[in-house]
Amino acid sequence: MIEMCQGFLANMNSSSTSSFCHFFEGTEKLLEIWFDKYDDNEADCDLRHIQSSSTSSFCHFFEGTEKLLEIWFDKYDDNEADCDLRHIQRKAWDSLLSFVNCKIISFKRNEHLDAYVLRHWWGRPDLPFAPHTGIRGHSNESSLFVSKNRIIIKTCGSTTLLRCLEPLLYLVKQMAGFDEVVDIFYSRKNFMRPELQDDSHRTFENEVEALDNLFDDGSAYCMGRMNSDCWYLYTLNSPQMESKSFKQTPDQTFEVIMQQLDPKVMNIFTRAVSASAKEATQKSGIDKLMPGMTIDDFLFDPCGYSMNGLIKGGYYVTIHITPEPHCSYVSFETNAPHNSYPDLVNRLLKAFAPGKFLMTICANESSSAYNSQKEFRGVEFAGFDRKELQVCRFKNYDITYGTFAKPNS
Amino acid sequence: MIEMCQGFLANMNSSSTSSFCHFFEGTEKLLEIWFDKYDDNEADCDLRHIQSSSTSSFCHFFEGTEKLLEIWFDKYDDNEADCDLRHIQRKAWDSLLSFVNCKIISFKRNEHLDAYVLRHWWGRPDLPFAPHTGIRGHSNESSLFVSKNRIIIKTCGSTTLLRCLEPLLYLVKQMAGFDEVVDIFYSRKNFMRPELQDDSHRTFENEVEALDNLFDDGSAYCMGRMNSDCWYLYTLNSPQMESKSFKQTPDQTFEVIMQQLDPKVMNIFTRAVSASAKEATQKSGIDKLMPGMTIDDFLFDPCGYSMNGLIKGGYYVTIHITPEPHCSYVSFETNAPHNSYPDLVNRLLKAFAPGKFLMTICANESSSAYNSQKEFRGVEFAGFDRKELQVCRFKNYDITYGTFAKPNS
Repeated sequence: MIEMCQGFLANMNSSSTSSFCHFFEGTEKLLEIWFDKYDDNEADCDLRHIQSSSTSSFCHFFEGTEKLLEIWFDKYDDNEADCDLRHIQRKAWDSLLSFVNCKIISFKRNEHLDAYVLRHWWGRPDLPFAPHTGIRGHSNESSLFVSKNRIIIKTCGSTTLLRCLEPLLYLVKQMAGFDEVVDIFYSRKNFMRPELQDDSHRTFENEVEALDNLFDDGSAYCMGRMNSDCWYLYTLNSPQMESKSFKQTPDQTFEVIMQQLDPKVMNIFTRAVSASAKEATQKSGIDKLMPGMTIDDFLFDPCGYSMNGLIKGGYYVTIHITPEPHCSYVSFETNAPHNSYPDLVNRLLKAFAPGKFLMTICANESSSAYNSQKEFRGVEFAGFDRKELQVCRFKNYDITYGTFAKPNS
Repeated sequence: MIEMCQGFLANMNSSSTSSFCHFFEGTEKLLEIWFDKYDDNEADCDLRHIQSSSTSSFCHFFEGTEKLLEIWFDKYDDNEADCDLRHIQRKAWDSLLSFVNCKIISFKRNEHLDAYVLRHWWGRPDLPFAPHTGIRGHSNESSLFVSKNRIIIKTCGSTTLLRCLEPLLYLVKQMAGFDEVVDIFYSRKNFMRPELQDDSHRTFENEVEALDNLFDDGSAYCMGRMNSDCWYLYTLNSPQMESKSFKQTPDQTFEVIMQQLDPKVMNIFTRAVSASAKEATQKSGIDKLMPGMTIDDFLFDPCGYSMNGLIKGGYYVTIHITPEPHCSYVSFETNAPHNSYPDLVNRLLKAFAPGKFLMTICANESSSAYNSQKEFRGVEFAGFDRKELQVCRFKNYDITYGTFAKPNS
């Protein structure tokens, strides 16, 4: 019996043994889905209309949600005559932005502000798409604003924004002369797909840990619903700034994040519909949103849009658009003061037609926007339910947070 | 040479080999600490005064931080004439509370409210101390309030409050006749030592997951600093309640959580200083805090204090005290309306002398406390800095959250 077995085994060659031993799960997974149209008007509907390329583009997820970092610098001895963040050379910015996986693609300036448009960059300039997926997808829309004593970096996708923080602080000391961080605001909405982020950004806890390692007495907040739409903020919120002149200078940031946008509007921000950034800017009415803007706009291929607008007095506007219907996302941000933020919101809703939106107003005591939460307390936006309204009173700033959604979104 | 080695090895007996092979880390850990007194008045200071028993009591950590669950019930068909949560029998409560690891130790009632004082119970009534530590420590102070259509359970330590939720809903349907949860408020401050909690409560995310499994459209919030002192809340915040009569009935809950309390005050809540609960209640001035209370107080052995106060009109007061100096914690809660909450806070600060405190006011539109956040916007408490002030406007309630601390606490 033993010999028989030995003979049988001897007749099997190595490959067949391996193939014999290799388990194969024959059990199939079976998925069958039947589609219909609510209004039964399905004459033009046919699943066979889906082309291979459109499937790929349709399926490619892009995280439009931006990470936003704003840092205010000063000098301990207040002798800051020669200090200016705009002394930092272009080469140094290029090098710094490589930590974030971004590169500069456009630049405009005025006497108060340097404004850069950025795009995602994976370290190989010949590769305009994500190497891990091989899909020629969407490019990241990002921005960098540099004034004398404040830096704002806003990046989306899977950029690694916080990785630039330590080298940035070094760079600022070496090239701009500032040696003190007086305040920092790191904020973002919850990611749609956090699992696609780098470890450093996968959870807000990870981000807070990285920031806590660099700053004393940083405060981490979550506004909105932790188990749904919310907005995270890390700030120093320290009494340090109270003694500074910053407090006397009016400062306000207004941000609106829109999702579930009208696909007809979103189509404007694709190369298939608009031949140039300028065309997209005009067709969408972005050029009319705020008066007196010098616009630096960029339309990505095949889709995606970034715009930096400069307004006299050190004010900026920045708009970033992810138009893909399954993950559409538009952000609007400005530090220009406004008499009526609800009015500006209404203009944005008219231009972009979102299904839901989130807004934040951050203002210091000297700002005309400081009492803006009173305006929002009773405000209604036609067709939208208010989901949340929160007001935080910090040491140097008040923040108003609100979310609104169409009834069935 | 080989034989020599073999001989040597043969001479070694098994145990010595094992002992020879067993690695022992000889490297010592060395800790040396020198103590002093700031005012140099150290005549009576001596580390040798520390007795074995006092060390054990001093080192025993107790989590005073309570989990607070408030649920409002109704009947879908509004035919609730025969429904009453007070129909639930004592035996059923006993059984339900075993899920939380609590048992009833005292009971008082008036026409509106049944009020129970609870203590931690590990399943063995002969064992008044934590079986996993063997230390005769502190008993948990907890409370249960039952009115016609609302249940409030507040438990501290490592109680497993959310484990009672599913059986509670069943019990309410069977014995009280209600078949609808119109609103729920689950809240707590961040734990001092979350690692000592049962899995179900170790993180707020775990708690939210358990609640989300039972309720649709629950909202989870974090007020305050996520990386320091904060307060978590889970509530339905749904439009469901808007149609209900509840909204027209004034309702408010005011809670103050105090930490780092004056040890002299805390000593009152030990058996060593006070012979009875009544003595502790009177010495501390708790009996004078609110007018017209019927008091049910309990002084635990060796320390710890619970008080339920009933006030005409369906109002309650509850105070729970963890007096140990390294983890001192006092909570005060009432649903009685107040003309001036800052005034009540000042009375609490005078009675308990905390190093820091957190307060929340939750009020619906009909409540006189609805505009209380305006009162807090400019308020100052002598000797305390305001750390945070937040206001959330929900569907049915407004919540004001504030934290205050002495400059060096």
